[in-house]
Amino acid sequence: MINILLLPELREMLANDDRAELQQFCTALNSARTAEFMEGLTNAEAWAVLRATDVSRRAEIFQYFEHERQLAILSEEDPAEVALLIAELYADDRVDLLQEMDEDRVNLLLDLLPKSDRRDIQRLQAYAEGTAGSLMTTEMAKLEEHLTVREALNEISRLSEQLETIYYIYVVNEDEQLRGIVSGRQLISSLGKSNTPLAELMATDIATVVVTDDREAVAQKVERYDLLAIPVIDESGRLVGIITHDDVIDVVREEMIEDVQMIGGMSPLRDEYLRIGLLLLCWKRGSWLTVLFFTALLTAFALRHYSQALERFAWLVLFLPLISSTGGNSGNQAATLVITALTGNELSVKDWKRVLAREWLLGMLLGSILAVVGFFVAWTWFAPSAKEALVVPITLVMVVVFGCATGSMLPLFFRRMGLDPALMANPFIAGIMDITGIVIYLNVALLLMS
Amino acid sequence: MINILLLPELREMLANDDRAELQQFCTALNSARTAEFMEGLTNAEAWAVLRATDVSRRAEIFQYFEHERQLAILSEEDPAEVALLIAELYADDRVDLLQEMDEDRVNLLLDLLPKSDRRDIQRLQAYAEGTAGSLMTTEMAKLEEHLTVREALNEISRLSEQLETIYYIYVVNEDEQLRGIVSGRQLISSLGKSNTPLAELMATDIATVVVTDDREAVAQKVERYDLLAIPVIDESGRLVGIITHDDVIDVVREEMIEDVQMIGGMSPLRDEYLRIGLLLLCWKRGSWLTVLFFTALLTAFALRHYSQALERFAWLVLFLPLISSTGGNSGNQAATLVITALTGNELSVKDWKRVLAREWLLGMLLGSILAVVGFFVAWTWFAPSAKEALVVPITLVMVVVFGCATGSMLPLFFRRMGLDPALMANPFIAGIMDITGIVIYLNVALLLMS
Repeated sequence: MINILLLPELREMLANDDRAELQQFCTALNSARTAEFMEGLTNAEAWAVLRATDVSRRAEIFQYFEHERQLAILSEEDPAEVALLIAELYADDRVDLLQEMDEDRVNLLLDLLPKSDRRDIQRLQAYAEGTAGSLMTTEMAKLEEHLTVREALNEISRLSEQLETIYYIYVVNEDEQLRGIVSGRQLISSLGKSNTPLAELMATDIATVVVTDDREAVAQKVERYDLLAIPVIDESGRLVGIITHDDVIDVVREEMIEDVQMIGGMSPLRDEYLRIGLLLLCWKRGSWLTVLFFTALLTAFALRHYSQALERFAWLVLFLPLISSTGGNSGNQAATLVITALTGNELSVKDWKRVLAREWLLGMLLGSILAVVGFFVAWTWFAPSAKEALVVPITLVMVVVFGCATGSMLPLFFRRMGLDPALMANPFIAGIMDITGIVIYLNVALLLMS
Repeated sequence: MINILLLPELREMLANDDRAELQQFCTALNSARTAEFMEGLTNAEAWAVLRATDVSRRAEIFQYFEHERQLAILSEEDPAEVALLIAELYADDRVDLLQEMDEDRVNLLLDLLPKSDRRDIQRLQAYAEGTAGSLMTTEMAKLEEHLTVREALNEISRLSEQLETIYYIYVVNEDEQLRGIVSGRQLISSLGKSNTPLAELMATDIATVVVTDDREAVAQKVERYDLLAIPVIDESGRLVGIITHDDVIDVVREEMIEDVQMIGGMSPLRDEYLRIGLLLLCWKRGSWLTVLFFTALLTAFALRHYSQALERFAWLVLFLPLISSTGGNSGNQAATLVITALTGNELSVKDWKRVLAREWLLGMLLGSILAVVGFFVAWTWFAPSAKEALVVPITLVMVVVFGCATGSMLPLFFRRMGLDPALMANPFIAGIMDITGIVIYLNVALLLMS
């Protein structure tokens, strides 16, 4: 829903080039809401509005623009003005944006930036995607351990404009190595003893991550310790950045979406659906679809193997899709549950016996319920005799039990092998159950009729 | 992985009742790590260790225990001591725990608590699960607007021990109505003008939620505005609590897991896999499995409708599972993508034309690739003539196109109807594609052979 309440007014101010009113619009509300009111403007209009206010406010509002609009403004507007804006953006956000832009444009902009910003951007760009380094910001309250509470407060007060968070103060030694943490709360409650050095106040047993750590490991640590931000150190223990809670929420969401996409039977997109190129999308889906297709081809050969039985008892064919889909569905349910329990750390591989026992029991229960319905339908409308109709319920129980067992065990097995359990995606389980269903079904038929 | 490094030492200290050493163990490390070292102990041993330290430290370590252990200790240990612990726990956490415990035990414990804690617990218990009220804590820095910076700092310094976060200071009027917010950062950087009243410093345009708001709406707001905590107000604008970033991460994870489970074809569990009762699990899976089973029964009737064609061209039967599963898989991929894009707010219903165009094109591409393979397999091993073999590739293209279109449009349609798009779960798409596949396949065969 786009907020169009103020659009006519904004456009009138732009037409009249009424800087004073535009400036007032930019500062009257909080920056997130200001950005919301601008959603209906074109990118060029939005930029024209921003230019009415000072550059630090511009950056604040800009960060709440939609991603596409941010990219458009950085790519198309006057380079010198854009560089001023980039210098004000958060260190992690601007690197993410620059990495999606045209290389020539990026080089042009980098040349216009102050040296310190340019170096900072180049350093952050060097970290591989998905690592702690690629998530972190270099803006943090980093103070030396010999400072007193009073000196620290003065320093923070001076720094506070440029920092994403000062909710933790990171205490380092002269080699920039992280020694401890003082919380803002502690600093405030130590106002009474303002000559105490930070070294005496700081907590020294702290959770950290290394720049090369995987982002999923980072999210787990932050969640486990309920942190607002986690410090990132390099191999020699030097503090190089922090990762803040809002980036962690994004990681949790993105990792879950990747799991869902794997469960849905494709490679994770890692980009928005409408933004990803059609050929890349075709590859990410086509590769898995083809693998699944070859698995499914096996069913044709399996069926041919049983062609005599199928000819003798022609009505059995009619129940083939039902058997397959029931096996696939019960397998999918079990797999989905085990995969989500594994990623939520509710379950570990060593629980496999309990899981198998539960799924076996559940399979018997669920299978029996469906078997009753299946038998009556088969007997009433399809099978020539009650005895022949019995093939359907017997198969159903076996297929559901087998589906629950396979669906629950395969993700555990994948985890045990050190692979992502979500790889054991629902379509694979369904594929396995297609073949298993055929084999069980026709063997039950042959045994019962012979 | 359970950390067993210190278990022998801890057990020795317990055996000797060495309070001094236990006390030192409890305070030497940060509380999360202390809890980790205690993972291998029994619940009773863990409680015995905690009792060696003061009650506020006890509560800090206790909050990092596993959920099961927390419940066991609260349910089984001496009520008077447990009540002391409960009084120290965070307001939101303790309510969550008490809600899972035996009612008699809860009443016994409530009677032992100070009146203010008892009231606070009862008030929080009253909010329905899934609402902002059920997520919030009542511990926050709430100050009146006439206080000066200096007075505020003193007050905060006094309060800081009991609070979950002081990173925002909530400014209220004499009726407890929320008027504005001052950040810790602002307070520190206003040290120079310590006689300024908070009313002059505070931001007044702030994001809030109402106690009855849905938790998903809360998470969206916190994510959108990158907040550390969001204030919760009642209908008359009074500040009643705050929801902190760590609870929001939990909500994001839980909501995504619910979506995944719906996509996997079952009702969301809302509990851990190994903890949920077997009959409830049977119901949550069985109800959907039965609905899907009745859908699948339709395939038997559909196939019977075409039984003449199946008799004339018996080899067609062999490709039935392949056609169904390919249709289902392409539909699942499209549905999964659209559902995740919808929940991630990347897509809205009004984009349906663009989505349909993309999926149609993609379906043609993917279908054509599979058609080539399918034709050669059918011609080489199964069909009596190339002309008959043509049924397979023609059907495959149509089924994949139809799968992509159906899989992408149904979740959008569900969203448009105000329903959860994840309800249009993969098994439903697969069920629809089973029938559609049969109808397309046999009609293509009849047309081509006539």
